[in-house]
Amino acid sequence: MAVCCEIDNLKGRREVILDDMNSWINFSSCLENHLLLSSPIYRRQLFLIRSFGGYCCKAHMEGQGAASGKITALEADAETVIRKITPVLDPRRHKGQAGKIAVIGGCREYTGAPYFAAISALKIGADLSHVFCTKDASPVIKGYSPELIVHPVLEESYSVRDDEKASVAKRVLAEVSKWMERFDCLVVGPGLGRDPFLLDCVSDIMKHARKSNIPTVIDGDGLFLVTSNLDLVKGYHLAVLTPNVNEYKRLIEKALNTEVNEDDAPEQLLSLAKCIGGVTILRKGNSDLVSDGVTVNKVSNFGSPRRCGGQGDILSGCVAVFSSWARSSNKEMDDKSASSPMMLGCIAGSSLLRRAASLAFADKKRATLTSDIIECLGKSLEDMIPAEQG
Amino acid sequence: MAVCCEIDNLKGRREVILDDMNSWINFSSCLENHLLLSSPIYRRQLFLIRSFGGYCCKAHMEGQGAASGKITALEADAETVIRKITPVLDPRRHKGQAGKIAVIGGCREYTGAPYFAAISALKIGADLSHVFCTKDASPVIKGYSPELIVHPVLEESYSVRDDEKASVAKRVLAEVSKWMERFDCLVVGPGLGRDPFLLDCVSDIMKHARKSNIPTVIDGDGLFLVTSNLDLVKGYHLAVLTPNVNEYKRLIEKALNTEVNEDDAPEQLLSLAKCIGGVTILRKGNSDLVSDGVTVNKVSNFGSPRRCGGQGDILSGCVAVFSSWARSSNKEMDDKSASSPMMLGCIAGSSLLRRAASLAFADKKRATLTSDIIECLGKSLEDMIPAEQG
Repeated sequence: MAVCCEIDNLKGRREVILDDMNSWINFSSCLENHLLLSSPIYRRQLFLIRSFGGYCCKAHMEGQGAASGKITALEADAETVIRKITPVLDPRRHKGQAGKIAVIGGCREYTGAPYFAAISALKIGADLSHVFCTKDASPVIKGYSPELIVHPVLEESYSVRDDEKASVAKRVLAEVSKWMERFDCLVVGPGLGRDPFLLDCVSDIMKHARKSNIPTVIDGDGLFLVTSNLDLVKGYHLAVLTPNVNEYKRLIEKALNTEVNEDDAPEQLLSLAKCIGGVTILRKGNSDLVSDGVTVNKVSNFGSPRRCGGQGDILSGCVAVFSSWARSSNKEMDDKSASSPMMLGCIAGSSLLRRAASLAFADKKRATLTSDIIECLGKSLEDMIPAEQG
Repeated sequence: MAVCCEIDNLKGRREVILDDMNSWINFSSCLENHLLLSSPIYRRQLFLIRSFGGYCCKAHMEGQGAASGKITALEADAETVIRKITPVLDPRRHKGQAGKIAVIGGCREYTGAPYFAAISALKIGADLSHVFCTKDASPVIKGYSPELIVHPVLEESYSVRDDEKASVAKRVLAEVSKWMERFDCLVVGPGLGRDPFLLDCVSDIMKHARKSNIPTVIDGDGLFLVTSNLDLVKGYHLAVLTPNVNEYKRLIEKALNTEVNEDDAPEQLLSLAKCIGGVTILRKGNSDLVSDGVTVNKVSNFGSPRRCGGQGDILSGCVAVFSSWARSSNKEMDDKSASSPMMLGCIAGSSLLRRAASLAFADKKRATLTSDIIECLGKSLEDMIPAEQG
């Protein structure tokens, strides 16, 4: 495998292309010894490069050297990440082993978002996809697709009397909790709405998921909830936040008490992720940036200029599945230190969505809708990792 | 018809290819007389081979001869089974004669599963497909397809007061029973859920079906019900159980009070089917195994490595239709002793699902969903038995 690395140090830029991984490891060890030993961030990058075969988490450090360097994110080698973590399609495996995902979302107003997230998970290869939503949303979401398992268990304030709230909240938690251990990942937020009682119930569900070590991807109104109570995810390494420009702004204001700084975007994202105790944050934008508080990666392969609503929901479903696969992959390799399955999941999900959006746009142009992009997820994945090889 | 048979006996393996059925019958009689007379299992295999033209139920007996031999299942000639039992499309026949199926399943949480089972029955050629489900599930299932006849008659505990339960249970049974005699086969279980009151009502329906000699395919939560009360199917030769890996494990533990033994899988399946009094069991897996307590068959033509939820529902619908056709075929031939229409239905259903899954996977790869497989049922059947010939 050819490995390309750009390194800026005090003496200027060097571009080095090495022929194989061993050369890279030798080279990186040399660098580690002589150049950048004092930077934990750079050491972490090197570690990840070695752990995952040099295809992600490249570092780009400018200015005054690594110890005090300004960090810009380099493009992750997302295709190699996807190839590495996507499981082999082995006929000996049985239902559930390729992933069981649950989306917490869907209320009286929003039904499309949880559907997009849940169906995207199936379309890239998960075996089972559940949705936990309100009673009003349930028949509509079921109606979109018989492939989903939809649980009408959430409640909004308008349907619950004040004196019932405690018992209803308890029942909601119990109904979701009995399923919790079966899931490889939760997606919290698509189409959740902002009803205070519902959000209280979802807080309880998130706390329970955290106790059970269930990875959790948080998007949409889930980010509204988390921004108002950062302790819900603080220090939880299996949490991923996927803010868009406005959600990111609110997060920065709340957590760092400052404004978004586009000039130092990777560094600010790194600070934010670190401040929330090492959660992984996928900042969506023209280029997506991902940080877990230790490293920063960029994904910017061409997607689509269409910004139709719902693409974030696809992303959240894909990140959930890819993160689960990365976690399984780490376990199978018994590589407890490889870590950052959530980072890998974000890189893979971001890149796949962009590729699918690009395919859909090539066909539908201005008329491209989210459903068109979902229909391109399979082909996009197939182009990178043919199922027959698996 | 050329008939190929492999027989392992004490003196080693012989492969014999005979030119026609008569030669085969003579040859098998000879074998019966001289080699394996002491084995009732092998005699049964021979009987079935003669009854159905030598295209299924091959026996493979290893080790110390038939009497004490270890049994491994040989591949059934599923295509020939399908050609034999699928009815001719005769314009003089009227609605209903190609099969009337009912699925008992569908509750507040699950609506996809009964839909998959019921629509699959229609897609392979049944004339009418009914679903008996709860009131909540009914509009959703109706919405999936106008082709189905959906009866909102089942009730879950949450909608029934304790003092009403007896009368509601009676009403549910009456509403299903009045239709019962019209059905060629029931499928009990897809999306049934585990509500205790609902399962009690379904127990009553199963007992009624048994009294009326209606063949019954049991899958999903129906297997949960049956595993907790084996008497529901014990000794009922028109019952088929279609357990997946986990459901099979629970059945083995309950009925045989032991663990699953993969090394002697065919023999253990045979014991299980015998223990439950000759029900037919289709054990789903990488290869499907089918036993009625007398013979064991294997179906392992290539399917798909995708394990998306819902494929078992397709199977249950197909087994119901094929079993009905096999039963009619026996009756038409006035061959009361030919028996085992449920075995033939399982072989045909398993093989057709695999073929359809393979076609769908060739097109959709990792994005293959259950609905894609259903869309390939028709072509898969057409490839084996063209409708125009019928």
